[in-house]
Amino acid sequence: MTDEQHYFTHVEGGVTAPRGFMAGGVHCGIKGPKHKRPDMAVIVSESPAAAAAVFTTNLVQAAPIRVTREHVRSGTLRAVVANSGNANACTGAQGLADARRMAELTAQAIDARAEQVAVASTGVIGVPLPMDKIAVGIERAIDGLSASGGEAAARAIMTTDTVAKEISIEFQLKGHTVRIGGMAKGSGMIHPNMATMLSFITTDAAIQPAALQHVLTHSTGRTYNRITVDGDTSTNDMVIVLANGLAGHECIGMDDPALQQFAAALDYVNTQLAKAIARDGEGATKLIEVRVQGAATEADAVQVAQSIAGSNLVKTAVYGNDANWGRILCAAGYAGVDFDPDRVDVSIGDVPIVEDGMGTKFDEQRVKEELQRAEVTLTVDLKSGPEGAAVWTCDMTEKYIQINASYRS
Amino acid sequence: MTDEQHYFTHVEGGVTAPRGFMAGGVHCGIKGPKHKRPDMAVIVSESPAAAAAVFTTNLVQAAPIRVTREHVRSGTLRAVVANSGNANACTGAQGLADARRMAELTAQAIDARAEQVAVASTGVIGVPLPMDKIAVGIERAIDGLSASGGEAAARAIMTTDTVAKEISIEFQLKGHTVRIGGMAKGSGMIHPNMATMLSFITTDAAIQPAALQHVLTHSTGRTYNRITVDGDTSTNDMVIVLANGLAGHECIGMDDPALQQFAAALDYVNTQLAKAIARDGEGATKLIEVRVQGAATEADAVQVAQSIAGSNLVKTAVYGNDANWGRILCAAGYAGVDFDPDRVDVSIGDVPIVEDGMGTKFDEQRVKEELQRAEVTLTVDLKSGPEGAAVWTCDMTEKYIQINASYRS
Repeated sequence: MTDEQHYFTHVEGGVTAPRGFMAGGVHCGIKGPKHKRPDMAVIVSESPAAAAAVFTTNLVQAAPIRVTREHVRSGTLRAVVANSGNANACTGAQGLADARRMAELTAQAIDARAEQVAVASTGVIGVPLPMDKIAVGIERAIDGLSASGGEAAARAIMTTDTVAKEISIEFQLKGHTVRIGGMAKGSGMIHPNMATMLSFITTDAAIQPAALQHVLTHSTGRTYNRITVDGDTSTNDMVIVLANGLAGHECIGMDDPALQQFAAALDYVNTQLAKAIARDGEGATKLIEVRVQGAATEADAVQVAQSIAGSNLVKTAVYGNDANWGRILCAAGYAGVDFDPDRVDVSIGDVPIVEDGMGTKFDEQRVKEELQRAEVTLTVDLKSGPEGAAVWTCDMTEKYIQINASYRS
Repeated sequence: MTDEQHYFTHVEGGVTAPRGFMAGGVHCGIKGPKHKRPDMAVIVSESPAAAAAVFTTNLVQAAPIRVTREHVRSGTLRAVVANSGNANACTGAQGLADARRMAELTAQAIDARAEQVAVASTGVIGVPLPMDKIAVGIERAIDGLSASGGEAAARAIMTTDTVAKEISIEFQLKGHTVRIGGMAKGSGMIHPNMATMLSFITTDAAIQPAALQHVLTHSTGRTYNRITVDGDTSTNDMVIVLANGLAGHECIGMDDPALQQFAAALDYVNTQLAKAIARDGEGATKLIEVRVQGAATEADAVQVAQSIAGSNLVKTAVYGNDANWGRILCAAGYAGVDFDPDRVDVSIGDVPIVEDGMGTKFDEQRVKEELQRAEVTLTVDLKSGPEGAAVWTCDMTEKYIQINASYRS
């Protein structure tokens, strides 16, 4: 990632950084009278935007997933409407009708067709949407649309998130200045396979829908699908990209060499948002990067890294600043990947703690310092091949339990 | 299980209930000077016993696993020696030599060959065994062998377990009175695929080693492999059965109809021990039984049940007495099994809370009462076929985090 950063400049604005995007986020009371946090977000492109999306792989798919899947099929969208506080999942025919109604209300207010609006919801499962509040929320959010509304929108999709997650970058593409903005939410129910969160990306790049879908699918596999908080793959999650082409360059198709350049920028944005989600995992005190190298294939590396990153025992040990490398080896060992455990090396930060499957005489104090960092890196070398991959997760704390033992109350 | 209980009588004695078995458990200081708990157990059969075993599927296998796998190959054992406090895993050539030495020391003291002794260890990974203490422990445990030593042995293999887990039953087989006794440990690192714990079963039934292995493998798949505490599959776990034949009946081979009867009794013993392990999961306050019915195949039912039982979000919700059925449906949805989520029914205890994929208007107070029981049953009907299965787990609490954030300290 670090090399790629040289091509980009960070700019302000989140999803409203690219030309022609406005956004708004308001409070409309979806979470009930006790909660004052904003809960309705709208992102609008002034002109129709090429669109691509990736959805949860869970068999149980929330109503907004079903509706947005239909709407994105045309390859063009004008807007995204998203509420927090209620997932509109397991809500049957009424839920589907409600999700369609969210698209219609948004479309009417911005003079678009309902099919041009993506719908997303996040929050508690199984409760019908309070459509009177939703209607008021959509109206207010659209009234408040602003070319600097990215942050307000990012705040309005938070649930147990403790920080809003947004990013915006600028770079040169085909001789024009292009921007990509993004916002995401997600904190629990975070696990690979496009599962887990909402992420909305805007760009003023001009790109054909098929090419956009191609790079998004590829990028998702390397970013959002490589984070895990608790192994639970949610019913509602989606990544949507809107590309409205207002940067003015010639439209990029599948065979354009500039597609790789755009893809690298999109990867960077998605990686930063994915890491921000892992870092803000429920109850987390630190980000953990699990790097696996020396694997026979990249898929093997990902599988071992996910097994380690998904281990409650590894995550609690990191929380406790405990260099319990046995748990790391153990989790690698049940990943289902073939390697020789007697050759494995493990480091915490840059301190080698396992060599050839056995503990080194490491300096406990130095390792403790590595474990106390805000970003802890666990590196595992399988010495079985040339491939590697990184997966991100967070530590696991009492607060994760407290948050989840009474989420509905 | 309930029907089968009629054929058995519970008796006292644990692994020393069957004829010809003695056991002992002592403290020898493996866990360090601060700990006074017993840490060395020995079980001895007065005559060579048919033996069968099942081992962890983790690629990282502790030294005692490797040694016991060799020793059990002959199909005959005289004794099991097991220590807690140190897993003798990731300890290289020295670890292997130490595990062999444990078998030798035990064999010498009981006038057997080292190959007739199974070795097991449980505890922290990556630390060499303190062989001076181990030697003293084995000597003392054998000095203290007794026909009523089952409980002492069961206590000596505990790590983070809060209760000793043992059982013994008596039943009629081929006109003779036969007993099966068992002891087990396991609390964290508990996950399917023979993973997770130590379980030692004794019986005075006469049974050929191949038949014993056959029924043990089958039984393990339906008992120990259907519990999960934290999804972590350990490096050390094994189930061993010793059958010394002293009940006096004709030896049972593969084609003997009495094999089914023995298998049912063994299943019962293993189920009770497995549930005891799940109930005593680290930090747990209750046992959760996840029953999946209406599956196309038994394997599908197990997969869905394990997905639900493995969900941190389900386990924290049960801890919080929160009828958050969306998490149950969600975990079923990512199990990787095909079913129609719009047809699924869910009950907590005997209260239906989901019908056809949507929440019922259930009485929150009644469901709360079901969730407050010491044994909570979650039943999921996929309505996709005739098969079913049950999996056991426990709730997840702050204490799980506290135990695991500083296990080594």
